[in-house]
Amino acid sequence: MRFTSEQRLDEGVVEREFTLGEIPGTLWTPESAADPAPLILMAHNNGLPKADPRLVARARYTAARGYAVATIDAAGCGDRPRSAAHEQARADLRRAMQAGEPVDELFESLIGPLVENAVPEWRTTLDALLELPGVRGPVGYSGGWTALGIRLAVAEPRIAAAGFFAGGYVPRAQREEARQVTVPLLFLLQWDDEGNPRQRALDLFDAFGSKEKTLHANLGGHTGTPWFELEDGTRFFDRHLK
Amino acid sequence: MRFTSEQRLDEGVVEREFTLGEIPGTLWTPESAADPAPLILMAHNNGLPKADPRLVARARYTAARGYAVATIDAAGCGDRPRSAAHEQARADLRRAMQAGEPVDELFESLIGPLVENAVPEWRTTLDALLELPGVRGPVGYSGGWTALGIRLAVAEPRIAAAGFFAGGYVPRAQREEARQVTVPLLFLLQWDDEGNPRQRALDLFDAFGSKEKTLHANLGGHTGTPWFELEDGTRFFDRHLK
Repeated sequence: MRFTSEQRLDEGVVEREFTLGEIPGTLWTPESAADPAPLILMAHNNGLPKADPRLVARARYTAARGYAVATIDAAGCGDRPRSAAHEQARADLRRAMQAGEPVDELFESLIGPLVENAVPEWRTTLDALLELPGVRGPVGYSGGWTALGIRLAVAEPRIAAAGFFAGGYVPRAQREEARQVTVPLLFLLQWDDEGNPRQRALDLFDAFGSKEKTLHANLGGHTGTPWFELEDGTRFFDRHLK
Repeated sequence: MRFTSEQRLDEGVVEREFTLGEIPGTLWTPESAADPAPLILMAHNNGLPKADPRLVARARYTAARGYAVATIDAAGCGDRPRSAAHEQARADLRRAMQAGEPVDELFESLIGPLVENAVPEWRTTLDALLELPGVRGPVGYSGGWTALGIRLAVAEPRIAAAGFFAGGYVPRAQREEARQVTVPLLFLLQWDDEGNPRQRALDLFDAFGSKEKTLHANLGGHTGTPWFELEDGTRFFDRHLK
């Protein structure tokens, strides 16, 4: 892991860019932490770039409350090169959405491989992050990208708690796998999310195997999550990682 | 309003029993409050007595965080006399439940009149409580008794925020009225509540007219609400009443 930049932010957070082989990432840590901070992996949905302002705002808020927060652009995500098949699937999806045609199968062929390719890079990153002196487990996953989080929570015993956002396509493989997720869970749903059927989200919440799982649903569309859910999410991790 | 007893509790809360005409009630207030405390009306479901340990625990917790909390045994509730019709409806309901017969109509005839009779007494009590020097509005309603809360929230402009618990029969009249509830709302649901159909609770959440409404659903049965929801509930009221 090679740090390529470091910046001190107003809220007492250090923001560092890093590369790990081909993987570019960002790590936010509390400036004044005496002890190592528990790590939260934070992923934006479906390959959105790690510099997306909503993700960055969440990461900074969380780091200011005593967490090491990390995100990466995994293979095919952010500005990283995409396969011809991926580009084709995106174009097909765009066309289908404009035409009002069914999109589930297209989402499958787009998101399925994206998750499969992203997971090994997130795990490699997790290995490297836990080697850093200021960073410790148990690890949380906080993600707009629920499908990736499900895969990671099942594959990674180091992940001890997960916060998922219901707004995003979850491939069949991960919907199946949801039963194997057993860590405490906070599942965030926007009640009127335009592109994401409510019943499918409720079914997914029902499917998770976790004994402690909480659904927070708020009125409004995909991007309307109220600010207080950020506080609630941090308190959820406080209960399980601190 | 006549206070009949006063007790200082460990957590810095004063607990006072009162009567208001025929209505017996309890008021919990923070001992050390410099300013008047915002009032929360707290009702247990379907006429359970005001001394029910779960209600008392919630009331004391909430008062210790800076609220005046009040509850009453309204007409037909707690130890107060019940009408012959009410006793008959209870007996019919018990028999139908044991026989595994449909119970909706029996709940209607039991809970409908109970709500109708309770509302005027809660409003009278509200008038009297807001006359006390240490108590102020805006007022919150926090209740296991959702049907009563819906009726009060619609009828009472002084109620500014409401926390409802989904586990309990809501008569048709209040399900209809839910659209007229417009105050910020926190709706608490136990995902596997034995006696209360999940879909009916989700439909009720959907029906509320409030622009700000949040659903918290947790795994488990009727009485399994996790302790952290008490904290979340208080923070919800902090946002709207303080």
